[in-house]
Amino acid sequence: MPHSPEQRAHELGLAIPDYANPPYGGRYGSALKAFHRTGDLLELSGLTPDSRDGVLLHPGVVGADVTVEQAREAARFTAINALGLIRYALGSLDEVVALSRGLCFVLCPPGFERLNEVSNAASDLFLDVFGPVAGRMGRASIGATALTRSACFELWLSLEARG
Amino acid sequence: MPHSPEQRAHELGLAIPDYANPPYGGRYGSALKAFHRTGDLLELSGLTPDSRDGVLLHPGVVGADVTVEQAREAARFTAINALGLIRYALGSLDEVVALSRGLCFVLCPPGFERLNEVSNAASDLFLDVFGPVAGRMGRASIGATALTRSACFELWLSLEARG
Amino acid sequence: MPHSPEQRAHELGLAIPDYANPPYGGRYGSALKAFHRTGDLLELSGLTPDSRDGVLLHPGVVGADVTVEQAREAARFTAINALGLIRYALGSLDEVVALSRGLCFVLCPPGFERLNEVSNAASDLFLDVFGPVAGRMGRASIGATALTRSACFELWLSLEARG
Repeated sequence: MPHSPEQRAHELGLAIPDYANPPYGGRYGSALKAFHRTGDLLELSGLTPDSRDGVLLHPGVVGADVTVEQAREAARFTAINALGLIRYALGSLDEVVALSRGLCFVLCPPGFERLNEVSNAASDLFLDVFGPVAGRMGRASIGATALTRSACFELWLSLEARG
Repeated sequence: MPHSPEQRAHELGLAIPDYANPPYGGRYGSALKAFHRTGDLLELSGLTPDSRDGVLLHPGVVGADVTVEQAREAARFTAINALGLIRYALGSLDEVVALSRGLCFVLCPPGFERLNEVSNAASDLFLDVFGPVAGRMGRASIGATALTRSACFELWLSLEARG
Repeated sequence: MPHSPEQRAHELGLAIPDYANPPYGGRYGSALKAFHRTGDLLELSGLTPDSRDGVLLHPGVVGADVTVEQAREAARFTAINALGLIRYALGSLDEVVALSRGLCFVLCPPGFERLNEVSNAASDLFLDVFGPVAGRMGRASIGATALTRSACFELWLSLEARG
């Protein structure tokens, strides 16, 4: 039986948010949308660790206001938001052929070196949900000097959808 | 009658620059090009708020040297440059199926939180020109610690072109 | 006779690394992969100036710990790593239709303005190897406040592969 990301997400008890309502992005600007699909390439808009009613998990500077462990919680929460956006875009997580790659922006000070540990909390969740074939991603982790509302993490993900 | 981005740009009186001459990028390196199209995916090179003869609008750090309002002018100017690059790539703005998404880099100090207000000036112009179907974009706004020549804004945009 | 990037790389005596073994990314997280191809679009994972056994070339902050010339060496080394990843993905550099674009992240302090000079060392190598048709790239150079292990440079590249 093939791996079902929807079933695996259910087994994990993930609280995957619904991006149909309220629409994505309204808090940040009226000209935004959640995703675009060009052929089989799905490009997601930026995702941060905020709940659908706008509460950010662990805002602040990682390595100063926010611990690495808290930032990992925020990165994992962001990945769960990404699952919601993918489901909203494709109807089901099972419509993913494979993740392509994700830029992970970490709000952090100069000298912070543990960005990969933060990003791993997102990547590891994707691997668990989508499995070893579809769930691995290309990645870069980049220290940002600022993010809107001082979110501690932001994900910029692309993936391949079924034709 | 379908929405025409070219007509709307004309109505708005936008001074859209010509990227045919001088070629894009020569100021920064001889190995650069303006865009690449893979299938219907158009990936634009980085765009900054500089005129074709190289004068940057409002260089400097947003929130320190540059006000948010000035940064918004720079972001809108960058979006107009993007229109020029799209027209150069596709022949006409009317060849755009839809914007996909854009990374917006804002040169700013730690603690700056109003990145989305800066980026909105670019997104709102795109929405006006391309209309509600094609003109919405996915987006993330990222604080950069430095940009070449201290440009205060840089846009990294992808979009879908007509087949 | 058409330009052969493989032949040109051989003429230049480039020591292109093998990404088959050890697999890409294991140092940073077990959920990573090196690349993904969606149709003819090849999206590479982030590349840094480290050897296959993990030694970073010139780690540190460009303009402080690391000179621009050292950062250029690191950027060129990163581009050679990208050649290895492309060969690993496609079997041969000759399977590249053209580079699309690359984000170049430079670890640097506020006020650093010479990011393009660093990135040019990567772009110029690509131009030399792939030639004037396939080897030009779209680009943006972004100052990062931090990168994992204080790599001084990271490349995020997309390109078009032969169908």
